[in-house]
Amino acid sequence: MKTTIGFIGLSHMGINMAKNLIASGYHLQVYNRTLSKIDELGAGNVTRCLSPAEAAANVPFLISMVSDDEVLRESAVGDGGILKTLQPNAVHISMSTISPDTSEELAKLHEQAGSRYLASPVFGRPEAAAARKLWICVSGDEQTKNDVRPILDLLGQAVIDFGPSVGGANVVKIAGNFMIMASMEMMAEAFTLAEKNGLSRTQVSEFFGSTLFNAPIFQNYGKLIAGKQYESVGFQSKLGYKDARLAFKLSQTSEMPMPIANAVHGRLLTAVAKGWGERDWVEGIGRGVSEDAGI
Amino acid sequence: MKTTIGFIGLSHMGINMAKNLIASGYHLQVYNRTLSKIDELGAGNVTRCLSPAEAAANVPFLISMVSDDEVLRESAVGDGGILKTLQPNAVHISMSTISPDTSEELAKLHEQAGSRYLASPVFGRPEAAAARKLWICVSGDEQTKNDVRPILDLLGQAVIDFGPSVGGANVVKIAGNFMIMASMEMMAEAFTLAEKNGLSRTQVSEFFGSTLFNAPIFQNYGKLIAGKQYESVGFQSKLGYKDARLAFKLSQTSEMPMPIANAVHGRLLTAVAKGWGERDWVEGIGRGVSEDAGI
Repeated sequence: MKTTIGFIGLSHMGINMAKNLIASGYHLQVYNRTLSKIDELGAGNVTRCLSPAEAAANVPFLISMVSDDEVLRESAVGDGGILKTLQPNAVHISMSTISPDTSEELAKLHEQAGSRYLASPVFGRPEAAAARKLWICVSGDEQTKNDVRPILDLLGQAVIDFGPSVGGANVVKIAGNFMIMASMEMMAEAFTLAEKNGLSRTQVSEFFGSTLFNAPIFQNYGKLIAGKQYESVGFQSKLGYKDARLAFKLSQTSEMPMPIANAVHGRLLTAVAKGWGERDWVEGIGRGVSEDAGI
Repeated sequence: MKTTIGFIGLSHMGINMAKNLIASGYHLQVYNRTLSKIDELGAGNVTRCLSPAEAAANVPFLISMVSDDEVLRESAVGDGGILKTLQPNAVHISMSTISPDTSEELAKLHEQAGSRYLASPVFGRPEAAAARKLWICVSGDEQTKNDVRPILDLLGQAVIDFGPSVGGANVVKIAGNFMIMASMEMMAEAFTLAEKNGLSRTQVSEFFGSTLFNAPIFQNYGKLIAGKQYESVGFQSKLGYKDARLAFKLSQTSEMPMPIANAVHGRLLTAVAKGWGERDWVEGIGRGVSEDAGI
C-alpha cells in the first residue's frame, strides 16, 4: 500500500512536482480549482478531491502550491479548508510564494488545530520542477523540517534551512524574486541604452552573459530580453507583479527602503495597467523599458 | 632594440598593464601625474616623461588609462598634450572609462592631426589587469583595431569588437559598470531586507551566489556587502559616482529613461555627499542602504 500525500494546486509548477511524487511511489489526494487538470496525473495515481479539506484528510503530509496569499488563506481556513480535516501532527508543506505574515498567521492556526505548518517556497522554473532541480528554502520548527525532508528531497536538488523563524524562507523567496526582476529591468535598461547608441542588444547580452554576468539568470533572461522574445509565456507579468507587491509590502512592514524594488514594482504595475498581465514578464519589463524609450 | 610604447596613467589598473607590457619585452615612455610612481616600473624599462606629449613622441602606439573625461581631454589637447607629438598614423589606444562623446571628439581631433584614436575600455579589477585577464572592448576603424590587436592581446583574456562606431565600446563599458553597481545596490537591498527580518545576510548571500546568481560579481561583491566588509578600498565611491554620472548623462543624451540608473546615481551621489568619496564603493552602496534603513 502506497503512502498517500495531499496536494493542492496544479499550476505549471505544481503539476510537475505532483508527477515526481507519483513517480517516486506516492499516491496523491489532489484538489485543484480546475478539476480536469487532475486527470493529467493518471486515474490510478490520484484521488480527485472536491475541496482542500478532502485533500488534507487522513494524510501525514499536505503540499500546497497555489497562486497567492489569498488563495492559500482560503484553502486553509475557508469552509472546505485544510484546517477542517488535517489530522493531529500532520504537516502542511506550504510551497507557494507568499508573505511571511501569512505564514506566521497560518502557522498559529495550524498549531491551535494540533497540526503543523512549514514554509517551503522554491526557486526554479517549471522545467526545474520537472527535473527535480528546485532549490527549496525552509524555515521554522526543527523537528518539522526533519520530518518533511524525505518528501522535499524528491522535489529538488537542495533543501536550504534558513533557521527557526516561521516566515524566514518566505523572506528569502521574496528577496530572490526581487533580485530576479531587478536583474531583468537592469538588463533591459542596459541593452536598450546600447540599442539607442547603435549597438546590437544581442551582442551586448552575450558579452555580459559570458563574462561578468555568467549566471543562468543573465544568460537565459538576457537572451529573451535582448532578442525581444515575448511570445512564449513562462511566467505571467501579473504573477511578477504579485511578487513585486510582496517585496514592496515587505519593505514597508520591515521599514526597509528599497529604491530598486520601488522601480520594478512600478514597471510591473505599468505592465498590468497596459493590459499585459497575461503576457510573459520578459515582455512586461523589456517592452516596458523600450516603450518608455520611445522605441 | 625593444619597441617603445607610450603610456599615460599609472593608476591601480595602469601600473599592472604597464608591468605586463614590460614583461612582454616592450620599453615604455611613461607619463604619470605623480612622477615617482614611474620608478616602480624599473629604471631600465622606462623613459620618464614630464608630459603626455613626451610620452607620445616617436611611438607607434600610445596607451592612456586615466581617471576621467576631463583628464583625458587635457592629456590629449592640452599644452603638453598627446596631439602635439603623436606621429602620423600612430594609434592612441584610449582605455579609460569615458563618455562616447569624448571618444568621438578626440577621434576627430586625431584624424585632423593625421594620427588615430581607438576606444578600448576594459572590464576587470586590478588583479585581473595583473593577471592579463581583462576583457577589452573595442570599436571603430577596422584597420586600427587590427593594428592594435597584438598589444591588446598582451593585456587581456579577450578582445571583443563592438563594431564600427567610434564610441560603441565606451557605451558597453558604461552599460556594464551600470549593471555592476545596480547589482550591488540590489544585493544590499535584498540582504538588508533579510537582515531586518532576522535572517543572516551572509547565508542569504551565499545561497544566491551559489544558485541563481552564481557569477563572480555576486559571489565577490556579495560576500563584501553581506559581511559589511568596507575596509579594503579596491574602487573608490567617487570613481563609482563618476561612472554613475556617465550612465546618467548617456541616458540623457540618448533619451533613454533608466529608473535603476537614476537610483544608483542617487546612491553614489549620497555617498560622496556624506564624505565617503574615498571609501570603497561597497561601503558607499552597502552602508548607504543600511543607514537609510536605520541600521
